[in-house]
Amino acid sequence: MTSMLIPLQLTLPAWVDDEVDATRLYTDDESQVGLAIRLARRNIEERTGGPFGAGVFDGDGRVVAVGVNLVLTQQCSSAHAEVVAFSAAQRRVGRARLNEDGRHYTLATSAQPCSMCYGACIWAGIDTLVIGARSTDVMELSEFDEGPLPSDWIGELEKRGVAVRRDVLREDARGVFTLYAQLGGEKY
Amino acid sequence: MTSMLIPLQLTLPAWVDDEVDATRLYTDDESQVGLAIRLARRNIEERTGGPFGAGVFDGDGRVVAVGVNLVLTQQCSSAHAEVVAFSAAQRRVGRARLNEDGRHYTLATSAQPCSMCYGACIWAGIDTLVIGARSTDVMELSEFDEGPLPSDWIGELEKRGVAVRRDVLREDARGVFTLYAQLGGEKY
Repeated sequence: MTSMLIPLQLTLPAWVDDEVDATRLYTDDESQVGLAIRLARRNIEERTGGPFGAGVFDGDGRVVAVGVNLVLTQQCSSAHAEVVAFSAAQRRVGRARLNEDGRHYTLATSAQPCSMCYGACIWAGIDTLVIGARSTDVMELSEFDEGPLPSDWIGELEKRGVAVRRDVLREDARGVFTLYAQLGGEKY
Repeated sequence: MTSMLIPLQLTLPAWVDDEVDATRLYTDDESQVGLAIRLARRNIEERTGGPFGAGVFDGDGRVVAVGVNLVLTQQCSSAHAEVVAFSAAQRRVGRARLNEDGRHYTLATSAQPCSMCYGACIWAGIDTLVIGARSTDVMELSEFDEGPLPSDWIGELEKRGVAVRRDVLREDARGVFTLYAQLGGEKY
């Protein structure tokens, strides 16, 4: 008989440890989004996934965990950078809601979260969401569908305790999608 | 030095194989949602997770994979039943978008997808979404926040090729949340 107990596993690419300096502090929006953008860029250069990167930082600016898009390479439509970063961070701290310890957590992402990752940001237990490129940039430069959002998506996050800052290093972030198109990256 | 290569793994509870008859065909909405509801119910009885279950079925009514909520038990805020079911189904068929093989796939879920799972339904490659309880039921009976959705959430799914049917076995589906409250289940 077929078993339903299918093992679910995602693995970050080995190059991630070269790209992240776990000993330094990333204390401002630019350094945090900058790391997310470098992860996105390297992910497409190494052909380990799509053009998206993200990092979870604690209140001191320490990297708790990072994520990159692994959708096509690991056959999992939910393996967006944000979900991977949240899952890794939660695994590291040992709880499903990061800020239940009373500390401050930030997600920095190379591009505005899609419909799914938007919802993931509500449940992960973060206090701040810092964003590089806008969804309009992603759709313009790469033709990805980012999906529909509630009309007041920022207000709905703020209502739930998540502050939002965007357009951080926006031009650099847009550059990742330009490169992705040049490399002939798949739209999905 | 701290490594960022954190292994990400989710494991379905062993009782899942008792609950799912992988040899039978689930050919209508009621039998598909019925299975999702039984999984949700057993998940709380066994204390392996929250009150949500889901199943992915192919066009013949065969179960491709199932999921239950594993958020608190496996410390992962994205491990909702729908995301677990999609990830397991994609692992089984070996691709990120289920219906890229030209066949028809359905997600049946015990309750209306939350904000995150709503987005996940767009990317998973399903043709039909069949739902038991409404979000208003979930919020009324269990106080879970289901998160904000686009105002025309059904239309936005249909525009992307996903048909939606709801209120299937709604009373049975509501019963799971009543039981969850009786068992003193945690709201998160």
